[in-house]
Amino acid sequence: MAKQIGLFGFGVVGQGYYSIAKKHQQNLLPKTIVVQNKKKERNPELSFSFDPNDILDSNYDIGLELISDPEEAYHIVSTLLKSGKKVVSANKKMLAAHLPEFLQLEKEFGGSLLYEAAAAAGIPIITTLDTHFAGDQIEKLEGILNGSSNYILSQLFEEGLTFEEALKLAQDNGFAEADPTLDINGSDVSSKLAILILHAFGKFVPEKDIPTLGVQHIRKEDVILAQKLGLKIKLIAKAQITADGITAFILPSLVNPKNALYWVENEYNSVKIISRNLGEQFYKGKGAGSLPTGASVYADLTKSERGYSYSYDKLNGELPKTFQPKSGNLEVIVRAHSENAIKSLVPEAEIVFNQEAYWSVATISAQLLQEKQTLIQEEEISIVALNETATKKDVLQALKEEVKVTISLN
Amino acid sequence: MAKQIGLFGFGVVGQGYYSIAKKHQQNLLPKTIVVQNKKKERNPELSFSFDPNDILDSNYDIGLELISDPEEAYHIVSTLLKSGKKVVSANKKMLAAHLPEFLQLEKEFGGSLLYEAAAAAGIPIITTLDTHFAGDQIEKLEGILNGSSNYILSQLFEEGLTFEEALKLAQDNGFAEADPTLDINGSDVSSKLAILILHAFGKFVPEKDIPTLGVQHIRKEDVILAQKLGLKIKLIAKAQITADGITAFILPSLVNPKNALYWVENEYNSVKIISRNLGEQFYKGKGAGSLPTGASVYADLTKSERGYSYSYDKLNGELPKTFQPKSGNLEVIVRAHSENAIKSLVPEAEIVFNQEAYWSVATISAQLLQEKQTLIQEEEISIVALNETATKKDVLQALKEEVKVTISLN
Ligand SMILES: NC(=O)c1ccc[n+]([C@@H]2O[C@H](COP(=O)([O-])OP(=O)(O)OC[C@H]3O[C@@H](n4cnc5c(N)ncnc54)[C@H](OP(=O)(O)O)[C@@H]3O)[C@@H](O)[C@H]2O)c1
Ligand SMILES: NC(=O)c1ccc[n+]([C@@H]2O[C@H](COP(=O)([O-])OP(=O)(O)OC[C@H]3O[C@@H](n4cnc5c(N)ncnc54)[C@H](OP(=O)(O)O)[C@@H]3O)[C@@H](O)[C@H]2O)c1
Repeated sequence: MAKQIGLFGFGVVGQGYYSIAKKHQQNLLPKTIVVQNKKKERNPELSFSFDPNDILDSNYDIGLELISDPEEAYHIVSTLLKSGKKVVSANKKMLAAHLPEFLQLEKEFGGSLLYEAAAAAGIPIITTLDTHFAGDQIEKLEGILNGSSNYILSQLFEEGLTFEEALKLAQDNGFAEADPTLDINGSDVSSKLAILILHAFGKFVPEKDIPTLGVQHIRKEDVILAQKLGLKIKLIAKAQITADGITAFILPSLVNPKNALYWVENEYNSVKIISRNLGEQFYKGKGAGSLPTGASVYADLTKSERGYSYSYDKLNGELPKTFQPKSGNLEVIVRAHSENAIKSLVPEAEIVFNQEAYWSVATISAQLLQEKQTLIQEEEISIVALNETATKKDVLQALKEEVKVTISLN
Repeated sequence: MAKQIGLFGFGVVGQGYYSIAKKHQQNLLPKTIVVQNKKKERNPELSFSFDPNDILDSNYDIGLELISDPEEAYHIVSTLLKSGKKVVSANKKMLAAHLPEFLQLEKEFGGSLLYEAAAAAGIPIITTLDTHFAGDQIEKLEGILNGSSNYILSQLFEEGLTFEEALKLAQDNGFAEADPTLDINGSDVSSKLAILILHAFGKFVPEKDIPTLGVQHIRKEDVILAQKLGLKIKLIAKAQITADGITAFILPSLVNPKNALYWVENEYNSVKIISRNLGEQFYKGKGAGSLPTGASVYADLTKSERGYSYSYDKLNGELPKTFQPKSGNLEVIVRAHSENAIKSLVPEAEIVFNQEAYWSVATISAQLLQEKQTLIQEEEISIVALNETATKKDVLQALKEEVKVTISLN
């Protein structure tokens, strides 16, 4: 017998799922669609409701939570799980905040929760981590997880646009929200990385504990330097196992052409995994958009209907289970508008003046990156990780080639 | 209660699976291991048997078929399916020949058959096609599916080895079999592509109907020409939907650096898919070896144990369901040792003499490629597809730059 499906939200993602179900399998269409805004015009052939309880209180088997309001989304998902229902969600912010509680509810009430679209939307990375890496030990996970940021970087590198022009184009093309803050400051990426860390390493990490910097301060000067070195800058999210435990960072990073991430352009996302059994695996696909995201939701729905639930294999694994948000050092290029700004971040480092900015190459700790967030934001300091692409010497050399004044050497 | 697992075969793949299960979850270790050779020394702590019926006749829940003998493998898999058992197999040749029958047995007797390791060993491509592309329409699937061939091509391009040296190195490193015929003549790839076509397009295609040429005739001359054009040669397996139906080819092909397949080196495999909902997706991972292949088998086992079976979503899809083995034209570069050889393949084409060989650029049909197999093998004719990388003019230009004699122009 066909399952009864209730849908919350009919925006970009909800409509994507709907159009796929309509083309493919009518019995996976929703019986009721809950939305919020009573003034919007709606297709009169669909049965819309403005009361979540029309689904929550009724005999629906599967609930699809695809709304943009994290609080209401939390209410919907937890209520459905408490009734032992099958749930699909795409709400990364909300999921990254509540996954441990949801896992508990699944166990207690026998429901299930799938959320493939919540990280790297179109790429089946969560299902793959959950099934294909069963029995494996992941050493490193690295990815490009925000389509807007990657689109902006591609436009800076390939088309020579300014940051402002690139951001505007991303918005015009629907790759960045009207308020792009969460996209460009890396916050969207930290939600996704938190979810991936749970599936890859079996540890729940609050996203605020992941040292994060987005692309918001990347400007032409950084692009010119990278190009001089034959490299590109990508916003890389990285988590790995070290002797101390799991470390993670999100930082603009130099990448070279030998790295598959170098070739990921525009709105594409990608994930690279190094594991004991499988060696290196690499996945690339669309990270946002109505059909790619709707397709992941639809795939979750078909899996859910057939009884699939995440095994959370890694939660029972043999890995180091501590998370070390303050451990780990990174070699980075720092650029600021004033000598003082750079000195407050890396007091000891050699400073070079180039392209009307102050630069240095220094080793900074994750702890410092966390502690100095206010300074970094206020002074619009650009930080780019070297990421095994170039040596400090190469970078300093490239900076000095057109050097105007060498400010200090201590 | 722990399921009873029976294992057939304890070679490269069987031992890979075994070592993963041993590290991860002891209740997924086999109770009995059936092998063939009574003279081999075996670990006395494991319970080996030389009689398949020790598993086939008994109360085992899941059978892992990992032997190298296709006939016996067919017997094992069909017997298990007829008893409604869960089965995992890695035997691409055997599967490509018998899948329709096995699907029938699954339906009739309620068992299930998973075979992730049979195509692109370490990459979870079959599960992904089966779950993630549910409700999607795949337009094109393209991949590098044989690690030995790709390893040889990498050695030709990156290290400047001769074909014979590269093949020897592939064998020494365990990437090619002692008898490498099936690897280098593309036959291994056609088994894999036949399996992938079933999951991607919902159509069973006998592998012999796929026009196929391997890397066996690729020599330094071809490499030099490709490098002059700034391109590489990869052995590309390709299937796509055209107005007439599904077409498929396996041919050495030029690829350019913008194509992710260009960067797939050595023993790695990869698959690129273009679909209506997801746009372009790209996966890369190891295509052979004890742990990568064992990991796919182990993942299948955990999925199987949890009740997962393939949905064969595309078998019920909306796609053109005819296969057109003889349709489709390809622009190719042809190289032969004699003018006559080249004329027997492409009688009308302009012939250029370069690097002591006869060349031409021509459009050939899939039908011709099939019909002329004997000629191609006997004359060791090299055929490389242009694959949207360079124009006929570019290639002829490159060939003529160092031209010694232009033989004929008609
Ligand atoms: N867009 C993407 O590419 C993408 C990719 C991955 C994940 N996601 C996630 O998917 C979710 C949905 O994103 P979207 O892009 O589809 O958003 P959207 O286009 O802004 O649509 C949001 C929908 O949610 C409904 N809604 C908002 N608040 C509600 C409430 N309190 N009660 C009931 N309905 C409410 C809206 O109702 P009205 O129709 O009445 O306005 C609208 O239908 C978000 O969690 C997002 O992070 C999006
Ligand atoms: N190697 C790879 O990387 C790879 C990758 C993907 C798929 N595969 C597929 O996986 C399968 C196994 O390959 P492999 O590389 O592991 O082969 P292998 O190393 O040659 O081992 C073959 C095993 O099968 C056993 N065997 C052979 N014939 C048998 C028979 N009639 N009855 C019972 N046992 C028999 C052998 O027994 P003895 O121990 O007594 O010799 C041996 O244990 C093949 O179908 C292959 O195509 C392999």
